[in-house]
Amino acid sequence: MKVIGIDPGLRSLGWGVISVSGSRISHVANGQCNGVGDDMAARLLALHTALTQVFRDHEPDQAAVEKVFVNRDGAGTLKLGQARGIALLVPAQAGLEVGEYAPNTIKKSVVGVGHAAKEQVQHMVRLQLPGVEFTGPDAADALAIALCHAHHMGSAASLARAAKVRA
Amino acid sequence: MKVIGIDPGLRSLGWGVISVSGSRISHVANGQCNGVGDDMAARLLALHTALTQVFRDHEPDQAAVEKVFVNRDGAGTLKLGQARGIALLVPAQAGLEVGEYAPNTIKKSVVGVGHAAKEQVQHMVRLQLPGVEFTGPDAADALAIALCHAHHMGSAASLARAAKVRA
Repeated sequence: MKVIGIDPGLRSLGWGVISVSGSRISHVANGQCNGVGDDMAARLLALHTALTQVFRDHEPDQAAVEKVFVNRDGAGTLKLGQARGIALLVPAQAGLEVGEYAPNTIKKSVVGVGHAAKEQVQHMVRLQLPGVEFTGPDAADALAIALCHAHHMGSAASLARAAKVRA
Repeated sequence: MKVIGIDPGLRSLGWGVISVSGSRISHVANGQCNGVGDDMAARLLALHTALTQVFRDHEPDQAAVEKVFVNRDGAGTLKLGQARGIALLVPAQAGLEVGEYAPNTIKKSVVGVGHAAKEQVQHMVRLQLPGVEFTGPDAADALAIALCHAHHMGSAASLARAAKVRA
């Protein structure tokens, strides 16, 4: 089963695909799509086209996106929302439900604590996905999101098994 | 030439298409797309699918979207941004540039003053598009956006003509 994590940012949208087979997890690919230029509609189109191609290339079975921290900067939040709309649309167009995880949930799942530094997250992603090379920081974040989703899937499966044993 | 105005809202996305031929403007169609359900990705997909169909049905040559007023409600702004991302994406996918107008610009263009009430805007839209029936308030807003864009196109054309005469 393949899981894609997506980190929608204002300048660049990071993505990372991992393969999950039982408790074995491995790296498939990661990258960043850049929305270039000042025109917002053109940037969103570029993001949509690039992310749709990623879905065609890797055909993920599950998708996860980071829940966004919203602040007092309304204009920035609006722009981020526009990019995030694309990050939610593309998996839905591929027929996938989208898991959403808060930043602290992702850090806790990957590092073990909710307030880890970026370097620490990247270090733990490298340990869990041997041989991985990050296209950039947003792609590394996206892989952390995918790992978080895989861990949650694993926990859900274990709970289901335990419930079956008990029944 | 056909102009589509789009009013992307949290619950419903309004659209309105008008036909512009020189200084003659007439109503073509208007409607509202509803993003139903709690799941944001599914709602965005529904909006995208419905708006894409509107573009197929009416093949507009120009598109305009309202500039959004952002407030201190970060979560609401983020959701609105996500819907707005779809409203910008669909015209870009159809190869159109998207005109963006502030709410006051739209009111000033349609009513003559920047701080008109909603009823006043709807009244003036009815006067300018005889026989129009609004699917709902968001569709009426979308027609006002399309009218504003048509007026700005008209001004730009007049300026270009004046410049030619002077040259």
